[in-house]
Amino acid sequence: MRVAVMTAPGRVEVEERPDPGIEKPTDAVIRLAATCVCGSDLWPYRGIEPLDGPRPMGHEYVGVVEEVGGEVTTVSPGDFVVGSFFASDNTCEICRAGYQSSCVRREAAAPGGAQADLMRVPLADGTLIATPGVPEPDLVPSLLAASDVLGTGWFGAVAAEVGPGKTVAVVGDGAVGLLAVLAARELGAERIIAMSRTPARQALARELGATDVLTERGDEGVAAVKDLTDGLGAHSVVEAVGTQESMMQALRATRPGGHMGFVGVAHEVSLSGMDVFFSHAHLHGGPAPVRQYLPDLVRRIWERRIDPGRVFDLELPLERAADAYRAMDERKSVKVLLRPRG
Amino acid sequence: MRVAVMTAPGRVEVEERPDPGIEKPTDAVIRLAATCVCGSDLWPYRGIEPLDGPRPMGHEYVGVVEEVGGEVTTVSPGDFVVGSFFASDNTCEICRAGYQSSCVRREAAAPGGAQADLMRVPLADGTLIATPGVPEPDLVPSLLAASDVLGTGWFGAVAAEVGPGKTVAVVGDGAVGLLAVLAARELGAERIIAMSRTPARQALARELGATDVLTERGDEGVAAVKDLTDGLGAHSVVEAVGTQESMMQALRATRPGGHMGFVGVAHEVSLSGMDVFFSHAHLHGGPAPVRQYLPDLVRRIWERRIDPGRVFDLELPLERAADAYRAMDERKSVKVLLRPRG
Repeated sequence: MRVAVMTAPGRVEVEERPDPGIEKPTDAVIRLAATCVCGSDLWPYRGIEPLDGPRPMGHEYVGVVEEVGGEVTTVSPGDFVVGSFFASDNTCEICRAGYQSSCVRREAAAPGGAQADLMRVPLADGTLIATPGVPEPDLVPSLLAASDVLGTGWFGAVAAEVGPGKTVAVVGDGAVGLLAVLAARELGAERIIAMSRTPARQALARELGATDVLTERGDEGVAAVKDLTDGLGAHSVVEAVGTQESMMQALRATRPGGHMGFVGVAHEVSLSGMDVFFSHAHLHGGPAPVRQYLPDLVRRIWERRIDPGRVFDLELPLERAADAYRAMDERKSVKVLLRPRG
Repeated sequence: MRVAVMTAPGRVEVEERPDPGIEKPTDAVIRLAATCVCGSDLWPYRGIEPLDGPRPMGHEYVGVVEEVGGEVTTVSPGDFVVGSFFASDNTCEICRAGYQSSCVRREAAAPGGAQADLMRVPLADGTLIATPGVPEPDLVPSLLAASDVLGTGWFGAVAAEVGPGKTVAVVGDGAVGLLAVLAARELGAERIIAMSRTPARQALARELGATDVLTERGDEGVAAVKDLTDGLGAHSVVEAVGTQESMMQALRATRPGGHMGFVGVAHEVSLSGMDVFFSHAHLHGGPAPVRQYLPDLVRRIWERRIDPGRVFDLELPLERAADAYRAMDERKSVKVLLRPRG
């Protein structure tokens, strides 16, 4: 089978590797219908996150089960499935509290990469959701989005305690930020402020539910949010970037007693105790427990109530993975969908 | 009148100053029945927080109203009152959300110091609570505790989402930590782990509701909490110190999805974005909105359901304020009550 491998920063190659098989009785093997490149894949691509040797890439996936181990009971060969980027047993105390991405048996869901023809998924029963049937082709991008960026944006909105009557600000106009806008709309927010200076992303944010768009950043971005909120700041702020500047912008844009949900992987970020203390904000975030939301998200997509697949603005065959990385690195594309079957 | 003034680190003197009067129609002037020294007063005493000139000290107070401004309607001369360390209007949107210590009109409640015979309190209607009558003398220490340390420990427990069925760990065995133990008990926690290595404080913690006492600190403290919680960490952790070590100990002792409430003023603390991100903890804290809890806390004290005044283990006349600071600085006393009337 083919898999995209990052061999060095800025270098992605599609290689032939042996087909994965069942290694443990709780495994499943999936033939991928679609996969994609994540914003977090750009950290090693840009050399910010170290790469210790060639790395098979990708952790977002939808596809058809080819084979299951002897202990798998909830999915069967032929099922169309969606899963999260962390494998989880979905039965431990942490999973039952809704934090499957910190499951006591947590492991990578795509140890051999998901930008591939085939992948092995550990802990299949606790990780995968079967869709009600084979999806119409136009639903596939949305189901793929549920695997990470929708689930992550959704968690960001939940962590920020988005709800009716609230004003929400979203810092970050990547796929996660845009889908946090969609989540905020679905969760009943009254006002949704998207922060973006790219016209195409601004337009998409408005279509997904943003009521206001701000182009300011940093302290000016904070001041602009306060201008829209009687000087108080937003009730809920979703941080979907993961830099020092974006974290501080999000923290300062949150009103006292408000909630900041952070889902951008916080690279090289340091929070001053005094800033956090006197912000009076609630802070919550981390790797999204996507598995918690998958049943609900798949249902919303299946019933065509939401269309998160709209964040994919470029589609390429798997063998062109290098072009996909380049397009996202250069911000020419919000998110690139890769088709293993080309 | 007399007031304790910090003239330099390690130096507190009781000075004669003019009696305070009504400056604004929203002010009240109180004759203090009791006041005390706060753990936060030790930061400038120890030279960790800069002191720009002589500072009248104290922000914890109970006493009798002497005089009110023309716009004050909820308290009258002769009323026995308790207030918080921040003056608040209690009507703005932030106050109504329960964050009076971030009131848009917030100011210091004791601008001229509360370790004094008399004090002026701004925004009296929004800041003070009158007790149902003149308290029995033995209730005065508990009412004084409500002014800060009880309200702060209570907020720490609320911020840590303490509740029935939960295991709570409290980092810090000062008055705030001890009263966070009391708050956790009142809020129905199932198991309350106090972290202390001082026998007298351990004993008090047990009397106030601790079910377990741990003497370990730092990484060993984290491991000890995990040993008591199936390796997961506590559901709720209250941080009541404010150092780098205590914040990290609290963060790491919180299970994924759990809640950390931090009320120790976070001096020289820096939180790594990655540590916070992968902790999956909820973080909330800051200057306690004591005013929110005062009606409830005063009622519990008045009905003798709680006895937070037990944290005072030394009582001195106001003129011996310097001895009070010394006793707390040397950890010979948990908290010292000062009597203006000697």
